[in-house]
Amino acid sequence: MTPAEIRVAILTVSDGVHYGTRTDKSGPAVADHLRKAGFIVAESAVLPDERNQIADWLRDIAEHRLADVIFTTGGTGVAPRDVTPEAVRDVIDREIPGIGELMRQSGRAYTPLASLARGLAGVAGSTLIVTLPGSPKGALESLGAILELVPHVHDLLNGRTAHEGQRAE
Amino acid sequence: MTPAEIRVAILTVSDGVHYGTRTDKSGPAVADHLRKAGFIVAESAVLPDERNQIADWLRDIAEHRLADVIFTTGGTGVAPRDVTPEAVRDVIDREIPGIGELMRQSGRAYTPLASLARGLAGVAGSTLIVTLPGSPKGALESLGAILELVPHVHDLLNGRTAHEGQRAE
Amino acid sequence: MTPAEIRVAILTVSDGVHYGTRTDKSGPAVADHLRKAGFIVAESAVLPDERNQIADWLRDIAEHRLADVIFTTGGTGVAPRDVTPEAVRDVIDREIPGIGELMRQSGRAYTPLASLARGLAGVAGSTLIVTLPGSPKGALESLGAILELVPHVHDLLNGRTAHEGQRAE
Repeated sequence: MTPAEIRVAILTVSDGVHYGTRTDKSGPAVADHLRKAGFIVAESAVLPDERNQIADWLRDIAEHRLADVIFTTGGTGVAPRDVTPEAVRDVIDREIPGIGELMRQSGRAYTPLASLARGLAGVAGSTLIVTLPGSPKGALESLGAILELVPHVHDLLNGRTAHEGQRAE
Repeated sequence: MTPAEIRVAILTVSDGVHYGTRTDKSGPAVADHLRKAGFIVAESAVLPDERNQIADWLRDIAEHRLADVIFTTGGTGVAPRDVTPEAVRDVIDREIPGIGELMRQSGRAYTPLASLARGLAGVAGSTLIVTLPGSPKGALESLGAILELVPHVHDLLNGRTAHEGQRAE
Repeated sequence: MTPAEIRVAILTVSDGVHYGTRTDKSGPAVADHLRKAGFIVAESAVLPDERNQIADWLRDIAEHRLADVIFTTGGTGVAPRDVTPEAVRDVIDREIPGIGELMRQSGRAYTPLASLARGLAGVAGSTLIVTLPGSPKGALESLGAILELVPHVHDLLNGRTAHEGQRAE
């Protein structure tokens, strides 16, 4: 499967954008990058930093298979309103810890503050969910660090594997 | 304690091997490597990718102290049937996150797909459990990355420490 | 906010120190290092390796805001009495996984045993809690690896951020 057949949904999590006091730069930047990489941007939305609203939206996309991959941007830091990782954990069946580790490790080349990103990735049904940081720069850096993995995860979730000896376990 | 006194159990987790449609290469490769490194291979088994069966087997080995260390191979990926990490979490008292991190970090030198390995290590009673990938190559690479740690964990679990200032905390 | 306004509490977790069979070198070494870096050492204590006692002490400091940051030293290894990570998990609202990852990654430059450190960091209310290893050398190495992050976390927990585009998510 090529990226061109993979449908992505993009969720911007930000009180400021939701309430109109801030312009969303990260969501469009992520969408633009993914389109250029050959993905189909099938859905996008903006939500405030509310755990239940975020979890409900993610669950809806995953259950109705409205996208193969969901990228969120925002709400992964350590400020009191940053609850995106908690919302994602409410929804996923299984975490893929290496994706969060890789985003932080790659980010440390840019800023030591990358260690404070609480981002993670996991699987809900057959949908992959990846949380990106809220700044456009951080979101694109993290996306770049892990994007090559996405088609592989998508294949594995949909039962397309080479012989087992090549499984990406 | 030298490796020669450490008893290991090896569990191959694979539907294919269990149902006879695939030959187990990883379990024997891991056993061979451990014997050459001076460990005693005390037990080995094959199970399908069934969380409860895996957890029961691990629990049995740990509770009856049939081995000091259990290595599993297989079922650590992101495909729907990959449930080994979940089975291990059902059994361990405490996780050692740095072992999973180290296996993934070392694996990235070979393939970016190493970030998709959901492998982990933890302690059940006084038994260390480490999950290795399912491919022979991946299993041996991960084993090589963490093997030097095993005698230290074994000593610590059995109350053999140098003075506390040298504890491997 | 400069470190000079940040109040830290230091908890030495050690059966040996608590029962008087061992001298605490790590707690004072950590305190000394933090004072020289401009932090205020507001509290310090010694407790045995007892999960509930550790958790109660941490909760008391966080709930009454007796310190902005708590550093523990000891009890993060894999020996049966090492329960500090479990006690911290009992208390924190949210984990910051990158801090534990960074301490282990930095520690591997000194010793492969750094991978066995089960240390973590998280937030209880507006108090940051970081667990350091029990040896003076390990505690200072881990502290050095993550100390620059502490003022940023403190700012974020207390609502001081630059504009959102610079948030350390």
